[in-house]
Amino acid sequence: MFANRIIDVPKSFIREILKVSADKSIISFAGGLPNRDLFPVENIRAATNRVFEISGPDVLQYNKSEGDPELRAEISKRYESFYSLDIPVKNILITNGSQQGLDLLGKIFINEGDSVIMEEPGYLGAIQAFGVYKADFIPVPVNEEGMDTVQLTSAFLTKNPKLIYTVPTFQNPSGITYSNENRKAVADVLRDKDIFLVEDNPYAELRFEGENKKSFRAFLPEKTILLGTISKTIVPSFRLGWIVAPDEVMEKLLVAKQASDLHTNYFTQRVVCQFLKDYSLDDHIKKINALYSAQKQAMIAALKKYFPKDVKYTNPEGGMFLWVTLPEGLSAMDLFNKAIERKVAFVPGDPFYTHKTGVNTLRLNYTNSDEKTIDTGVRRLGECIRESL
Amino acid sequence: MFANRIIDVPKSFIREILKVSADKSIISFAGGLPNRDLFPVENIRAATNRVFEISGPDVLQYNKSEGDPELRAEISKRYESFYSLDIPVKNILITNGSQQGLDLLGKIFINEGDSVIMEEPGYLGAIQAFGVYKADFIPVPVNEEGMDTVQLTSAFLTKNPKLIYTVPTFQNPSGITYSNENRKAVADVLRDKDIFLVEDNPYAELRFEGENKKSFRAFLPEKTILLGTISKTIVPSFRLGWIVAPDEVMEKLLVAKQASDLHTNYFTQRVVCQFLKDYSLDDHIKKINALYSAQKQAMIAALKKYFPKDVKYTNPEGGMFLWVTLPEGLSAMDLFNKAIERKVAFVPGDPFYTHKTGVNTLRLNYTNSDEKTIDTGVRRLGECIRESL
Repeated sequence: MFANRIIDVPKSFIREILKVSADKSIISFAGGLPNRDLFPVENIRAATNRVFEISGPDVLQYNKSEGDPELRAEISKRYESFYSLDIPVKNILITNGSQQGLDLLGKIFINEGDSVIMEEPGYLGAIQAFGVYKADFIPVPVNEEGMDTVQLTSAFLTKNPKLIYTVPTFQNPSGITYSNENRKAVADVLRDKDIFLVEDNPYAELRFEGENKKSFRAFLPEKTILLGTISKTIVPSFRLGWIVAPDEVMEKLLVAKQASDLHTNYFTQRVVCQFLKDYSLDDHIKKINALYSAQKQAMIAALKKYFPKDVKYTNPEGGMFLWVTLPEGLSAMDLFNKAIERKVAFVPGDPFYTHKTGVNTLRLNYTNSDEKTIDTGVRRLGECIRESL
Repeated sequence: MFANRIIDVPKSFIREILKVSADKSIISFAGGLPNRDLFPVENIRAATNRVFEISGPDVLQYNKSEGDPELRAEISKRYESFYSLDIPVKNILITNGSQQGLDLLGKIFINEGDSVIMEEPGYLGAIQAFGVYKADFIPVPVNEEGMDTVQLTSAFLTKNPKLIYTVPTFQNPSGITYSNENRKAVADVLRDKDIFLVEDNPYAELRFEGENKKSFRAFLPEKTILLGTISKTIVPSFRLGWIVAPDEVMEKLLVAKQASDLHTNYFTQRVVCQFLKDYSLDDHIKKINALYSAQKQAMIAALKKYFPKDVKYTNPEGGMFLWVTLPEGLSAMDLFNKAIERKVAFVPGDPFYTHKTGVNTLRLNYTNSDEKTIDTGVRRLGECIRESL
């Protein structure tokens, strides 16, 4: 009875992992949740009440599919101030988080079997969203400098990929950030190709060390599609994100958005707009970054202390994750099963690959545990690894 | 560059119509908006503040793809009290309005070219949502008694439709309600077929005359999928709806929901749940129905007074629309252009048909104009019709 696009999709692996990790006695480095202690509850509440005062019933009525023009103007201003990008309001479409951005892109671009270049490892939400439209994934590895441009070039030898998906800053799952040089090199490969580059960017503002990098839009203005979200910086439960796309893509996205759900929750769009007008987002993000920086340092210190020397890990300058590579031959999935017995959880690398299983890599989240818990959890993990060696 | 599914989809016709009608000097019977004067602003505001008090930061965190269990329990209770239906909470999935319910159903059921039976005339949002997945529509006419069961039976002679879409109570666009006898007859045709019936039900509680009808779920419990929404009864801008589906369908819907946007806005789910706990929905709906009833009566009175005798129209016992059939040979689209010059708008029938254009039918909304304006607008429309004859 079901459509081909949904028959093969298994139950979300990460969902199952998160279920296991929900046990309160388990130290979890598995989730990807922002730290709830930092949610600006009182300011969101004040903004909400101001919205009721200012707009009354109008804020409860149906609204435009594009999203609230004032909120889109605030987003455009933020691109100007934080990224030095000039983004016209008409090129911004409000979505239900960036996950819906991915779904809409899949909907308007991907015919069954169309090729899509995917970072390896890559964000599993993108793999799921494009996978539903039966994309043919071409994985291209990322390393600490960014995407492997030799393998990127090879991807065009036999296929005509329509999209390339990247999280170039504080990547999920690896924490890797593409250097400016690598971004330019990637852009040079793509410049004469018939392709759109998707720059998914939930984490760039969560930078606690180093310098901002340039957006791909600075190198490939006509070919870059940006995805943004407030989920990691303000509030996740509102499911508020956006797509920035060229005019001809925007037109198709708008048709797809209408058919998908008419428009994103207008009430909470207004609340976020009011919050951005009344409070300093920079001040709020400073608090997040101070905490996440300390948590990351605690995790790096614990990894140094407890992990065998031949285990490698990234040391990101921001974001929420780091990426561990076990010695060859060790399976992160086997380690996961051992770790759960010792009451510590993480996400094994498998769901972040489109063509590999039984990998020796894993993702650690550091934003949801205090420093002492991080030390205890990493110590237990280190013991599990030593036993496996 | 674009996927086949989106290339042919034209800009929403109704969107263009609504743009024309947005001119404040135009009397508009075109929209499908609930009357904003009836939004329970103060109670929603109070519920919102209680949610902040009770839940604090938890209400801002990511949440389950199924939706809030307490809200789903409230919805289940409502099915019990209003419809005498026993709906387990596990069979309810929260969506972004029922439009997302339609999109998710298209996503999990429709391969390109799969047949879908569609009421004629039928809800254009469903035509759009399923059209994106390249459904092959089989139109089956509805009349004042409900669906034509002879033509419904014929639909199975040469094709194997997977879905049948209905709005059996106060249909959009026609205002028609299927009788209980017709529902039983439709169910009898479908009973031995491999098909799911979608009962989209945004309007049933907006009944100001007559008796509640039975849900198709009472006749075909295993084959019926229900769509619900709070958009017409409480607040549209939250984009909050739901699907009720059998277990095996629910499993696929959940995968599709995760890939589409992870979950629906959790904060406003909690607000609606609190609203339902703290206030009487029945009392609120009584107010809506008192106003809509008066507006409908005003429109029927004006139609009697100003329309030529050979113009037919429905006289619904609830909902937001009625349906006008002009004498043969008259085009509602031509009438629309004339009417706009006279500063009155409606929706010509064309977008509600999958296989016809230039039809002689049109939709009138009566919930957004006061009685005097209804009289003036219908008078002008009557003049335009007489000129066309």
